[in-house]
Amino acid sequence: MMADPLDALRALMASHSPPLDALVVPSEDNHQSEYVSTRDKRRAFVSGFTGSAGLALITMNEALLWTDGRYFLQATQQLSERWKLMRIGEDPPVENWMADNLPRNAAIGTDPWCVSVETYQRWEQAFLKKKQKLIQLSTNMVDIVWKDRPPAEILPVDIHPPEFAGCTVAEKLKDLRAKLIREKAYGIIISSLDEVAWLYNVRGNDVAYCPVIHAYAVVTLDSALFYVDKRKVSSEVLHYMLENGIDVRDYDIVASDVSLLASGQLMGSSRTKLSGMESHEASKNSTGVLGDDRNAEEETKHKIIWIDPFSCNLALFSKLIPDQVFMQQSPLALAKAIKNPVELDGLRKAHIRDGAAVVQFLVWLDKQMQEIYGASGYFSEREGTHKRKHSLCSDTLKLTEVSVSDKLEGFRAKQENFRGLSFPTISSVGPNAAIIHYSPEADTCSELDADSIYLFDSGGQYVDGTTDITRTVHFGKPSAHEKSCYTAVLKGHIALGRARFPNGTTGHALDILARVPLWKNGLDYRHGTGHGIGSYLNVHEGSPHLISFRPHARNVAIQASMTVTDEPGYYEDGNFGIRLENVLIVNKAKTSFNFGEKGYLEFEHITWAPYQKKLMDLTLLTPEEIEWINRYHSDCREVLAPSVNEQETEWLKKATEPISMIVFDNRSG
Amino acid sequence: MMADPLDALRALMASHSPPLDALVVPSEDNHQSEYVSTRDKRRAFVSGFTGSAGLALITMNEALLWTDGRYFLQATQQLSERWKLMRIGEDPPVENWMADNLPRNAAIGTDPWCVSVETYQRWEQAFLKKKQKLIQLSTNMVDIVWKDRPPAEILPVDIHPPEFAGCTVAEKLKDLRAKLIREKAYGIIISSLDEVAWLYNVRGNDVAYCPVIHAYAVVTLDSALFYVDKRKVSSEVLHYMLENGIDVRDYDIVASDVSLLASGQLMGSSRTKLSGMESHEASKNSTGVLGDDRNAEEETKHKIIWIDPFSCNLALFSKLIPDQVFMQQSPLALAKAIKNPVELDGLRKAHIRDGAAVVQFLVWLDKQMQEIYGASGYFSEREGTHKRKHSLCSDTLKLTEVSVSDKLEGFRAKQENFRGLSFPTISSVGPNAAIIHYSPEADTCSELDADSIYLFDSGGQYVDGTTDITRTVHFGKPSAHEKSCYTAVLKGHIALGRARFPNGTTGHALDILARVPLWKNGLDYRHGTGHGIGSYLNVHEGSPHLISFRPHARNVAIQASMTVTDEPGYYEDGNFGIRLENVLIVNKAKTSFNFGEKGYLEFEHITWAPYQKKLMDLTLLTPEEIEWINRYHSDCREVLAPSVNEQETEWLKKATEPISMIVFDNRSG
Repeated sequence: MMADPLDALRALMASHSPPLDALVVPSEDNHQSEYVSTRDKRRAFVSGFTGSAGLALITMNEALLWTDGRYFLQATQQLSERWKLMRIGEDPPVENWMADNLPRNAAIGTDPWCVSVETYQRWEQAFLKKKQKLIQLSTNMVDIVWKDRPPAEILPVDIHPPEFAGCTVAEKLKDLRAKLIREKAYGIIISSLDEVAWLYNVRGNDVAYCPVIHAYAVVTLDSALFYVDKRKVSSEVLHYMLENGIDVRDYDIVASDVSLLASGQLMGSSRTKLSGMESHEASKNSTGVLGDDRNAEEETKHKIIWIDPFSCNLALFSKLIPDQVFMQQSPLALAKAIKNPVELDGLRKAHIRDGAAVVQFLVWLDKQMQEIYGASGYFSEREGTHKRKHSLCSDTLKLTEVSVSDKLEGFRAKQENFRGLSFPTISSVGPNAAIIHYSPEADTCSELDADSIYLFDSGGQYVDGTTDITRTVHFGKPSAHEKSCYTAVLKGHIALGRARFPNGTTGHALDILARVPLWKNGLDYRHGTGHGIGSYLNVHEGSPHLISFRPHARNVAIQASMTVTDEPGYYEDGNFGIRLENVLIVNKAKTSFNFGEKGYLEFEHITWAPYQKKLMDLTLLTPEEIEWINRYHSDCREVLAPSVNEQETEWLKKATEPISMIVFDNRSG
Repeated sequence: MMADPLDALRALMASHSPPLDALVVPSEDNHQSEYVSTRDKRRAFVSGFTGSAGLALITMNEALLWTDGRYFLQATQQLSERWKLMRIGEDPPVENWMADNLPRNAAIGTDPWCVSVETYQRWEQAFLKKKQKLIQLSTNMVDIVWKDRPPAEILPVDIHPPEFAGCTVAEKLKDLRAKLIREKAYGIIISSLDEVAWLYNVRGNDVAYCPVIHAYAVVTLDSALFYVDKRKVSSEVLHYMLENGIDVRDYDIVASDVSLLASGQLMGSSRTKLSGMESHEASKNSTGVLGDDRNAEEETKHKIIWIDPFSCNLALFSKLIPDQVFMQQSPLALAKAIKNPVELDGLRKAHIRDGAAVVQFLVWLDKQMQEIYGASGYFSEREGTHKRKHSLCSDTLKLTEVSVSDKLEGFRAKQENFRGLSFPTISSVGPNAAIIHYSPEADTCSELDADSIYLFDSGGQYVDGTTDITRTVHFGKPSAHEKSCYTAVLKGHIALGRARFPNGTTGHALDILARVPLWKNGLDYRHGTGHGIGSYLNVHEGSPHLISFRPHARNVAIQASMTVTDEPGYYEDGNFGIRLENVLIVNKAKTSFNFGEKGYLEFEHITWAPYQKKLMDLTLLTPEEIEWINRYHSDCREVLAPSVNEQETEWLKKATEPISMIVFDNRSG
C-alpha cells in the first residue's frame, strides 16, 4: 500500500524556505481547465477525491477539501478520515477559512501556474487582514511526491476543417483584432484550451473527453502565436499554421515570451510583413467606436495586454506590468458560444445520430433486463419475475453499471463522425443515481436491478458536434414516490424547455422555471440547470452563459444561436436519483407581439430520446405539458426513424405513442 | 404665466463661484424619500414632470430628465420641448452622461442634503476620468427661484400605540444596540423617515400619504436622539419620549450634532444614567458573536458610526471622519420588513375592511355605468345601449376618473381605523391606464366609458395596516385581445402568488414567474413585480426586498413574515393598460419534503376583491389556475360577507361564483 502523500507534502512544506503554513492544491491545470489530463489530477492524487471540481488545502495538522453540491456524497465516500469535507455554499469559502484560521503572517504556498488571476486577487484581498502571504512555488510540490505520475503523452494536433468549423481562422483573427482595437489593447493572452482550439480551428487529444491541445495562444495586432509541444505538430499542420500567419513556438517558452510581450519586444516572425495592412484594416472597421483612427493607433502603442482573469494563471500574469493589463472576460468566450450556422447544423445532425444510439441502447437494455432479470420491462408497470434473484446464472450474463455503459459507448462508436465520449458516462443504479456525478468503476460498481431506477448521463464527441443527454428509466414497478418525483423533474424540464423570453434575460433568471415544480413539494437539486455545449469541443462551456441559481457577474444574457442544456434533477441520498437532460439551441421566437422591441427568444430541443411514460404520474401533468410531450415524442419518432432498424422502430413507436387526454374545454365555464 | 425656472436657474449657475457647468436636481428630500412633501417637490417644479421618481440635470444649453419605465409616457406628455427625456435602462445613466458630455474639470452643483452617499460615491467615481468636481451648494438654488414655494406645515407627532405596533421602543432599541455591538459600531444615524417613525413608534403627517415625520434619529450605545421641529411635539409625546429614554432635539441641529458624534462629544442628556447598564447587557447578549466582552467594549471606543449609504445624505456624511464610517444597509430595514404577529394581524384586518370598500365601490360603479352610460355591466359581455353617447345628460351625472376615485375614497373613509389614502389613487380609463403611474387631475381627466377598460390602483392608511390593491375591469364588451392580455397578466399574478420556494430565494429570482405567461406572446411590463408594504407606514417599502427583474446587491432573500405585493401588468400605449395587484404575507409552507433542510415558504393573499371573470379567456387557463381562482373567490366571499350589505352580498356572490370546468383526468391516459 502506498504511503499517504499528506505526510511527504508536510515534510516538504516544513523544509521550504520560508516554511509553509499551508499548501493549496487546486483541481485545475495550467489552463484552468475543468477536465484535466491524468498527470494533472494532482488534487485527486493528494486527497483521493476524484470529482471534477474541488480544492485541497493542507496545513500542518489539517487537510480540507472544498467541493460543490454535485459532489458532497461522493466526497464523503472517497475522503479518508484524515480529510475534512468543506461544502461550498454552506461552509466558509477557502480564502475566508485561511484568513480566519491560519496564523498572522502565515506563508501559504501554491503553484502559480494552477491558480487563476481572479482567484489570486480574491485570496490576496482576504490575506490583507492578517498580513498573510501567498508564496508562488517554483516547483509543484505534488509532482515531487507523486512518484508514479503519468508521463506526458505526445498526441497529434489535428486541423478542424472549415466544413465543420464554419468559419476560417482568418475571419476569427480579424474579428478578434477588431475587438482588441475597440478596447485599445495591443494583444491578448489566451489560456483556455478550448479557446485556443476554437480560434486556430485545431483539435487534439491531450485531455480525455475534450478534443483540445495543451497550448497557449498569444494574438497581437501584428502577430498570432501558438505555444505547443512541437512534437505534436505534423508538417501538414505546421504548413497550415504558416498559411494562416500563425507562428508555432514551443510550449515551454510562453512565460519568457510573455515577458517580451510586456516590454514590447515580442515579434511574430511569420506575420510581420502582413501585419501593417491587416491591423490598419481592423482599425478602420472599428472607427465607429473609436471615433478616430489616429487615436486608436496611438493608444495601441501603449501595449495594453488583455487577459481573462478567470483563465489566465498567476505565473503568466506575473510577467506583465500591472498598468498594462486589461482584465476582462476573453472575447472568444462569447464568439465561441454563439454557434455559426455550420456548427448549428452539425450539432443537430450529431444529436440525431446520438439519439439513435441511445434508443438502440434502450431497446437492447430493455430486452436484457427482461431476459436476465425477469423484469417486466420498459413498458410494463407490473412486478417482474425476478428471475436472477431466484436462479444462479453465470456472472458473464450479469449487467453492471460499467458493462451497460460500455455497451452504450459501443452503440455510439458505430455512428458516423464519432471520436469518443464527451465525458465519463454516469451510469447509475438506485442509490448510486443520487450521486450527481457518479462515475462507476468496474470492480466496485453495482449490478442492474429490475426494482431500481437507472440513470444515465452521457455524451459523445462527434467531429460535427458534441452531445450530452440524460434519461432516467425503470424496468420494473416504480413506486408512487419515484413517479411523483420523476414527474416534478419532467415538469421543470418542460417549463424551462418551452419558455419564451426577451433578449437580455440571463440564465440566472430562467433557472427558477425548472425548480418551481419541485419546490411545490419541498424538493430541489444542488446543481445548476444548464451549461453551454461545444462544437466538437468541451461538453461544458461554462461561460459566458449558464442557467444557474447562483448569480454570476460574468453571466451574460442568453442570445440567439447559443447552445444550452436543460437538466433539472432530484436526488434522494441512499435511495435514487432522477435527472432529465436535453441540449437546446436558442432561436428567435415568432411572437404575436414584440413589446419593447427587444425581440423574443425560445429553445429548440435537439436531443432525441423518449421520456419514459411509465415513470410519469399523469394526474400531475397539465394538458399543455402533455401536449408538449406528445409533440416531442412525435418529432422524436420522425427524426430517428431513418437511423434505427425495424425492431427498434417498433419499440420507438410504442415509447412515443401519444398520451391520451380528455379534451379540456373551458369555453363552457 | 410663470417664467420657466430654467432661465433663472441658469442665471444663478452662471453667477455662482465657481460657475456651474451643470446643476443636478434630484427627486428626493433630505431623507431620500420616494414620496416627498409639496415643498420638497423641487424636481417637479423645475421640470414639470410630476412622477414619483426622476432626476433633472440642467446645463447651460440642455435640460435632461431621467426616469424609469413606469413614467416614460407620462414624462413625454409633461415635459416641455426644452426638456429631453432620458430613459433609465435604455439611455446611459446620469453619471455616465455627465462624465461623457460635460467638459473636463466641469463644476457640477447640487444640494448635498438631497443626494445620498451612495449616489455621491457613484458620481465621484465617474467624475475621476475628466477631473470633474461635485460642488456642494450651501443653498438650494431651486428654493431661491421658487417664489411661491409652500411653507413648512407644523403637524403633530402621534404615538403609535403598542396594540398596533406590537413591539415596544425599548425592545427595538435593545435589538438595534445589539446589532451595533455585533458590527463593532458605537452609533448609527437613521435618515429614512419611515425607519425613524418605526423605531420610536410614532407617526406623523408631514408627507402626503405617508404617516411619517420630518425627523432624524441618532442612536448610540449610550443615547437615543430624535431630531424634529419641536413645535410638532406635544407635552404628552415629549413625556413619552423621555420615558423611553429618547432625547428630543431640534431638527436643525442634526448636522452640528453629527459633528459632535464624529468627535465623540455627543451626549444624550436623558439617557446618560441608564446607558452603562444597558450597553453592558447588549454586549453580553452578543458575546457569542464577538467571542469576548472586553474586545467589544474596546472596539466601541473607536466610535465607529454606522450609516446606510442609500438613505444618509452627503451633508451629514461630510461631518464624519471617513475612517470611522461603517457603511451598510440600515439594520432597521430588515427589522421593519419582518412584521411581528400584531402587525400581521392588523394588516389582515385592514385588508378585509379595504376589500369591503373596494367591493362597495365596484357595486356602485357597476350600477352607475349601467344607469348613466347604458353599459351592459360588470357581468354581461353584451354591447350596452351607449345611453350617454346618444342623449345629452347633465354634466353633474358624468363619471370621471377623479369623481369615481373620490367615491372610492369615500367608501374607504367609512371604514374603521381609516386615516387617509396610502398613495394618489390611479384611476384610469382606456389609454390612460397605459400610463403606469397615472394620476388624474380634475380638470383634464377622462370620462368613464362603457367600451373601455378601467384600471384602479389604490390603497388606504389604516392605523392597523397599509393597503394597496389594483383591479382592472370592463363594463361593456371587451375585445378578444384585451381578454387575452388580461388572462396573461392573471396567469402571471397566479404563478407568482402560488409559488413555493426555499429560504434563500430572492425576489429577483421569483420575478420571472409573473412574466413568463406574458412573454409567451411577446408581451412584458416595464416595472418590478412586487414591493414590501408598511404597517401604517410607507406603501412602498422598497428595501430590503423587492420582486424585480433588476438584480440588486441589497435585495435580501424573501423571509417569513415579510409582506410583498404581486402586481404584474401589461400596457399598450394609446390603447389600454392592465394590472392586478394583491398584497401577500410570506408564510412557512408545510411541504411533503424539506430538501436541504432549508425550510420552504409560500404566500398568503390578504387582499380581497374578485377578478373579473368576463375579462378572462378561459381557454387559456389551466385546471390548476381555475381551481386557484375558484378557491380565492370562495375565500373572498366568506371573508367579506360580514362587512357588506345584502345587495353587495348578492353582487359578490355572482362575482365569485366558481368557474365550471370539465374534470380533467389523465389517469385514463
